[in-house]
Amino acid sequence: MTLGSEVGLDALPLRDDLRGRSPYGAPQLDVPVRLNTNENPYPPPPELVADVAAAAGEVATELHRYPDRDALALRADLAEYLSGATGVPLTGANLWAANGSNEILQQIMQAFGGPGRLAVGFEPSYSMHPIIASGTRTEWLPAPRRADFTLDAPAAAALLREKAPALALVTSPNNPTGGSIEPDDLALLIDAAPGMIVIDEAYVEFSDRPSAVGLLAEYPAKLIVCRTMSKAFAFAGGRLGYLAAAPAVIDALQLVRLPYHLSVLTQAAARAALRHAEATLRSVALLRAERGRVCAALGSLGYRVVPSDSNFVLFGGFADGRDAPTVWREFLDRGVLIRDVGIAGHLRVTIGTPEENDAFLQAAKEAMQ
Amino acid sequence: MTLGSEVGLDALPLRDDLRGRSPYGAPQLDVPVRLNTNENPYPPPPELVADVAAAAGEVATELHRYPDRDALALRADLAEYLSGATGVPLTGANLWAANGSNEILQQIMQAFGGPGRLAVGFEPSYSMHPIIASGTRTEWLPAPRRADFTLDAPAAAALLREKAPALALVTSPNNPTGGSIEPDDLALLIDAAPGMIVIDEAYVEFSDRPSAVGLLAEYPAKLIVCRTMSKAFAFAGGRLGYLAAAPAVIDALQLVRLPYHLSVLTQAAARAALRHAEATLRSVALLRAERGRVCAALGSLGYRVVPSDSNFVLFGGFADGRDAPTVWREFLDRGVLIRDVGIAGHLRVTIGTPEENDAFLQAAKEAMQ
Repeated sequence: MTLGSEVGLDALPLRDDLRGRSPYGAPQLDVPVRLNTNENPYPPPPELVADVAAAAGEVATELHRYPDRDALALRADLAEYLSGATGVPLTGANLWAANGSNEILQQIMQAFGGPGRLAVGFEPSYSMHPIIASGTRTEWLPAPRRADFTLDAPAAAALLREKAPALALVTSPNNPTGGSIEPDDLALLIDAAPGMIVIDEAYVEFSDRPSAVGLLAEYPAKLIVCRTMSKAFAFAGGRLGYLAAAPAVIDALQLVRLPYHLSVLTQAAARAALRHAEATLRSVALLRAERGRVCAALGSLGYRVVPSDSNFVLFGGFADGRDAPTVWREFLDRGVLIRDVGIAGHLRVTIGTPEENDAFLQAAKEAMQ
Repeated sequence: MTLGSEVGLDALPLRDDLRGRSPYGAPQLDVPVRLNTNENPYPPPPELVADVAAAAGEVATELHRYPDRDALALRADLAEYLSGATGVPLTGANLWAANGSNEILQQIMQAFGGPGRLAVGFEPSYSMHPIIASGTRTEWLPAPRRADFTLDAPAAAALLREKAPALALVTSPNNPTGGSIEPDDLALLIDAAPGMIVIDEAYVEFSDRPSAVGLLAEYPAKLIVCRTMSKAFAFAGGRLGYLAAAPAVIDALQLVRLPYHLSVLTQAAARAALRHAEATLRSVALLRAERGRVCAALGSLGYRVVPSDSNFVLFGGFADGRDAPTVWREFLDRGVLIRDVGIAGHLRVTIGTPEENDAFLQAAKEAMQ
């Protein structure tokens, strides 16, 4: 018997608001086709793999030393990439990085949120936002989207003015629904936000809309643009989230970040991945084309498809009014793992390789019969 | 000019209690002899470097996929190592890992601390403890040690009974003072703790005292033993902290941990380091021998040396009653970076290689004249 296993969670002095909760996370099941966590289906090219191994071997000779606490070289590289991608002149002083965008968001809530402060999100949206709010004891106010999952920007702006949250979180493109916010609407929200406003652009590379990075010069005292290398960069396993903002925002996060939070391996591997950005990001065009094909095919099969600007698609309109858990299981029984994101009558599928999408569409066809 | 640099930190809606603070961190200066952050001075052996590079190359082929969220293989390896080191039968269900012991401590405070809850530490001690308490909005009560920096266990136990903190943090060996708590005293403290008690054993490999892991079977509902691979394992750059506890404690931390917090590279590199534990930990005997030599030599030079059970030494008794910042600068002027830990009349030096220690002792001799 495992040592201490006679003790149950109920016997521990856990925070009261955590009692009865379950850990976040999609089931990690070993099935042939995994389209459930919005990963990029294309593995890193061999040159990148070799570069990561070489970089790891190089920094491993100094593993006994703490890493650069400020990750200056990585942040300069991120600034160069992001300037190139957006046309906005940025330096490393505008960039900050952490172990995934979750850690970025946690640091933001630690610095600008916390007890007695309010954060607002427009749901359904990224389900980690309220969990990180809880983890930092920030009060969370979920505001609604329209029935079609688009954001009613004037109503949202009015809500921001009325509730005056310390933090507003806006995901564009939105996960799990897929749509982006139009630039005019985004400006409306940022104008209205009385505190800090975080635009979470985890999926922005899959969208045609301009990045909110272009608005930083106009709103340096309130705007934070949060990004990740997990999706378009195919670097989910490397855990690298980053943000762009005014340098003072990063000064604020330095007060709450755990020192040496980014290992030498993370810094070196992320820099290697940035050197190969052009090759990796070539997958974006393939995935966008496949997204178009999958959406059209789902529509032809009779499903209701939510327009997507991302590398996933939310769809509903299941046969015989079956519910999402039932249909999710029907896909799983056919070897296709997709995601029940908790929106009644809807499921989310990540765009995979053409072969994976074929398998998904075959299962979708069978599930409709 | 950097975009947004016209905005100062004062203009941002920072949490009030963070205003005026400085980020944690020792100066990262480029000097010949760095003995300021308790790193292991011995680089990883070439076989380990090669193994890390090979492991990185292997997992890099799957960088587009999220890591194992529960780090099961790494936790099993940690259990095997820790069982071997302590003689206590542990499984992976008793182990948890994170990006450095700082993240472990943060998760512990998120789960068991927070607003309205109290954490107690016995100071001077590891200066990140109160910072992590602040980051999680846990009230921090610093309790005193004796003038010689030892812990008055009966008084400490009485304080734990009186103040009834949700969390007690006990560092053994203690950083920055170097001494361990005797086993009987440790049992006294654990008995008295009304909430969770964390024994922070970051430096335990350098001590002869038994690990608190041996007490887990007796106190499964309150004891957490926290460790790191940064010191004896010479893995500071890899960022791997871990804990041993009852499985229910880990269930609690799963409710607050950020999902996928440990990258595939961190998991793979830490497993590689554990495979080479025997070679790496051979440095411990060398460092202990050098610690004896450094302490004796400092004493001969007229310094007052605090007995150390760790890989660093706190010393005082400076010439002409000079203060710590002045003497710290005298060492730095001689190319030796040590640490002013904020204890009046004292400085902390990390035990380095024999050559580094010679350089330190030469500077110590000159600083005494």
